[in-house]
Amino acid sequence: MHHALVVRTPGRGTSDLTRRVQEVVAASGVREGLCNVFVHHTSASLILCENADPQVRRDLEAFAARLVPDGDPLFAHVDEGDDDMPAHIRSVLTHSSLCLPVVDGRCDLGTWQGVYLWEHRTAPHERRVTVSVLGSRG
Amino acid sequence: MHHALVVRTPGRGTSDLTRRVQEVVAASGVREGLCNVFVHHTSASLILCENADPQVRRDLEAFAARLVPDGDPLFAHVDEGDDDMPAHIRSVLTHSSLCLPVVDGRCDLGTWQGVYLWEHRTAPHERRVTVSVLGSRG
Amino acid sequence: MHHALVVRTPGRGTSDLTRRVQEVVAASGVREGLCNVFVHHTSASLILCENADPQVRRDLEAFAARLVPDGDPLFAHVDEGDDDMPAHIRSVLTHSSLCLPVVDGRCDLGTWQGVYLWEHRTAPHERRVTVSVLGSRG
Repeated sequence: MHHALVVRTPGRGTSDLTRRVQEVVAASGVREGLCNVFVHHTSASLILCENADPQVRRDLEAFAARLVPDGDPLFAHVDEGDDDMPAHIRSVLTHSSLCLPVVDGRCDLGTWQGVYLWEHRTAPHERRVTVSVLGSRG
Repeated sequence: MHHALVVRTPGRGTSDLTRRVQEVVAASGVREGLCNVFVHHTSASLILCENADPQVRRDLEAFAARLVPDGDPLFAHVDEGDDDMPAHIRSVLTHSSLCLPVVDGRCDLGTWQGVYLWEHRTAPHERRVTVSVLGSRG
Repeated sequence: MHHALVVRTPGRGTSDLTRRVQEVVAASGVREGLCNVFVHHTSASLILCENADPQVRRDLEAFAARLVPDGDPLFAHVDEGDDDMPAHIRSVLTHSSLCLPVVDGRCDLGTWQGVYLWEHRTAPHERRVTVSVLGSRG
């Protein structure tokens, strides 16, 4: 029921996981149930976001950079750099898990919904994601 | 295990779904398990919020309007208007799914917890929500 | 499948629940599945956060205090004090439920991920949390 994904990120920004998640659900054989997507890190997160206009994710990035500025003197946890603590905060304000309905053998997302991993560190990382599929093969 | 709800919103603001979600759980016959509520859009979201004083949701709305201002020059994605990009951001900062314990045949919410759909667009919309109930009929 | 935890908080701040959640999963006998952690309140919430440097959670607290200031004149819902409405907003912006993969009989968290209850009120509270474990004993 669990499937591990490795996501190599090019640094801060979003990576579309929708196709890979749908492939896991298809391979699971589950027809009706739930699919939980989980990221095993506290400086990257998961979001459901508009999937048609890439500008939406650029605007989201700009908003996050303004809301939680790198190098903010408020932060004392700076061991790994200016983007360290902002990454943890962006992660807490978004999502580590997404629980999606599985209907008729696939994640029943809205037309404009995509599943994205959001890398919050500026450097490239390898991120571990677990996709769990629960339900009946009916 | 899935039940579709259609929520007609009068524009920006919250709609109480608690009763409808509890009715789905009751009708499912599940006694012990989980209930996942999912919204199939990226410009409306779900929250668990205080259910006694409507002022709480008015204050929440005022806070969101200040945090993510309509018409902010930061945003380039403005095709559908000043409230378009703010709606996507409010959605990412809140929730597309809520996973609730089902105990004794009902969602075991706290006394002051209500399930709300939060419409982030200023115009009325018809929103699709899926309530999934998983568990044993014990 | 459900286990109730009572968390006594010393007022605003985070309480580490990781060990208690792992104990519930171990006691459940479930080997592969999902663990849902749910808090039955709207002025306390749940987060997955970096678990090595306590400064991370102090910085997070400082950020939240700046983002949602106690006593902000924007808020009309002030019956229970200056920290009342900020507590509801912090709760909405973070999480009431966390859905975690159970692999090999334990929550498969990342090395640096801890499960925390975040008390948002300044006074001590007793908080109710439900840990639900679903899956196969394989």
